[in-house]
Amino acid sequence: MPVETVDRARLELDAEAERIRGEIDELFGRLLVSRNDGRDDLYAAMRHAAIGGGKRLRPLLTVAASRLFGIARDRALRVGGAIEAIHVYSLIHDDLPCMDDDDVRRGKPTVHKMFGEAAAVLAGDSLHALAFEILADPETHEDPFVRSDLVLALAKASGPSGMAGGQMMDLAAEGKSLDLSAITRLQQLKTGALIEYAVEAPCIMGRLPSEARTPYRGYARNIGLAFQIADDLIDHAGDADAAGKRTGKDAEAGKATFVSVLGPERAEQQARFLVSQAIEHLADHGAEADLLRALARFAIERNH
Amino acid sequence: MPVETVDRARLELDAEAERIRGEIDELFGRLLVSRNDGRDDLYAAMRHAAIGGGKRLRPLLTVAASRLFGIARDRALRVGGAIEAIHVYSLIHDDLPCMDDDDVRRGKPTVHKMFGEAAAVLAGDSLHALAFEILADPETHEDPFVRSDLVLALAKASGPSGMAGGQMMDLAAEGKSLDLSAITRLQQLKTGALIEYAVEAPCIMGRLPSEARTPYRGYARNIGLAFQIADDLIDHAGDADAAGKRTGKDAEAGKATFVSVLGPERAEQQARFLVSQAIEHLADHGAEADLLRALARFAIERNH
Repeated sequence: MPVETVDRARLELDAEAERIRGEIDELFGRLLVSRNDGRDDLYAAMRHAAIGGGKRLRPLLTVAASRLFGIARDRALRVGGAIEAIHVYSLIHDDLPCMDDDDVRRGKPTVHKMFGEAAAVLAGDSLHALAFEILADPETHEDPFVRSDLVLALAKASGPSGMAGGQMMDLAAEGKSLDLSAITRLQQLKTGALIEYAVEAPCIMGRLPSEARTPYRGYARNIGLAFQIADDLIDHAGDADAAGKRTGKDAEAGKATFVSVLGPERAEQQARFLVSQAIEHLADHGAEADLLRALARFAIERNH
Repeated sequence: MPVETVDRARLELDAEAERIRGEIDELFGRLLVSRNDGRDDLYAAMRHAAIGGGKRLRPLLTVAASRLFGIARDRALRVGGAIEAIHVYSLIHDDLPCMDDDDVRRGKPTVHKMFGEAAAVLAGDSLHALAFEILADPETHEDPFVRSDLVLALAKASGPSGMAGGQMMDLAAEGKSLDLSAITRLQQLKTGALIEYAVEAPCIMGRLPSEARTPYRGYARNIGLAFQIADDLIDHAGDADAAGKRTGKDAEAGKATFVSVLGPERAEQQARFLVSQAIEHLADHGAEADLLRALARFAIERNH
């Protein structure tokens, strides 16, 4: 691809990412209004975690994939907000002292550091419920069949057969030497399931039959793993300031990662291969898939 | 009411409660099958908390209210199972050291005592997701509008504007002297919202318009408060063996309860008044409401 085309795609991706960060902040700002009663701290904790931080990768994926099927932007944003609510709840619980015990997240104190552990547990639980409240609201989609399917797929992607199950595998794996296929399986649940849902949800809104979803699932699975490898490389490189969180903690915890198994060079090659595979899945699409292509191409070049 | 009628109603309620305990255990047994991978402990923790314990009051309410609208028992049971999954997740998180720090629940060690705190957080999160997975599954109801409405109402009842919000109010209230109306408001969110949902869900399945739901909401609100007063009386009486959990902890934590504000005698009177009000709301119904009436009458006579 000529250099000027690459540059333009990059600029467009950055502009879209910036716009979505603003829109998701605005959505949470609207949904998380404190009630001026005994729940003030709960709403403050939810706002602290949900507003003004993060790459908003999952909503960006949902908006980008929604372009393929002509889905209205405000719908894609509400679904993206629901996914982000799940992602943020999992970060709050993950950061707890009994889990990863982290003090800093997205360059700010973690929720339990600011509001205490009990409020952090409840803020996570509240964002968890909020995600399903958003999806089941007729404002998200007028077709109840679509709403119900969005809920069912998100519950599966975030529950014991998805994200939460992957987190448990991760805990169980501490100090064990996993091979590449075990790490891949773990990460496909822990981070992959929700990323896959971010692309699956537009397929549900576009009422694609199950068999027509295969290429988009393939795209999502490939970039999910590529992003995880990029994350592992950042953690390995250990620039805490750029990452906005503590780095080097996987090695410290004795956790097997793509980088510890493959080494940084082969891990990077693997990420590039996965990105090319992801883009390959979009071969039937024209310019409407450019944002998804740019996302795949540039997201592994980030340093945080 | 003649003594023999009271006795028969009591026997019928006990038989139905016993049957539902078996059916809910069977449902969770089917849904929570361990995968023989790194998630074994997660499923074991979920099963430990969800199977073989508890009064199953909420599923019992859902089944009893479903009789009013001719809703099939297997549907009522699945919805009751979803509510119970939310209830159990909230108990697991509530028992954590950073929350109420309890070692015993339903006469067994709490989840974090058996499986560790991290697994307890994840087991709660997993049951939370499972509740919505059950409701959005076409097996629960063939009408997607009903499924979507069941999800929306449960998300509201369990999230920051319902149960989780009430739990936060409860934390914020420690050591403060609440008046009767503040305690009522707190308990209406903390325990009342989910009990109300247990009766609202059959109204949704019966496709009752909103205005026709008023008496059932009234019934649920009255018995929700009556049950809470009964709980406070048990905690106050302090028989830990009968309660299956630590008692006297409200006084210990300096928490205002119905009993601390009203005193045990007036609290009991108030509970009886609420029960009579609850039954009054069912005046338009015949024998099909007998189970709901018996539930209201006898549930405050339990000692655990």
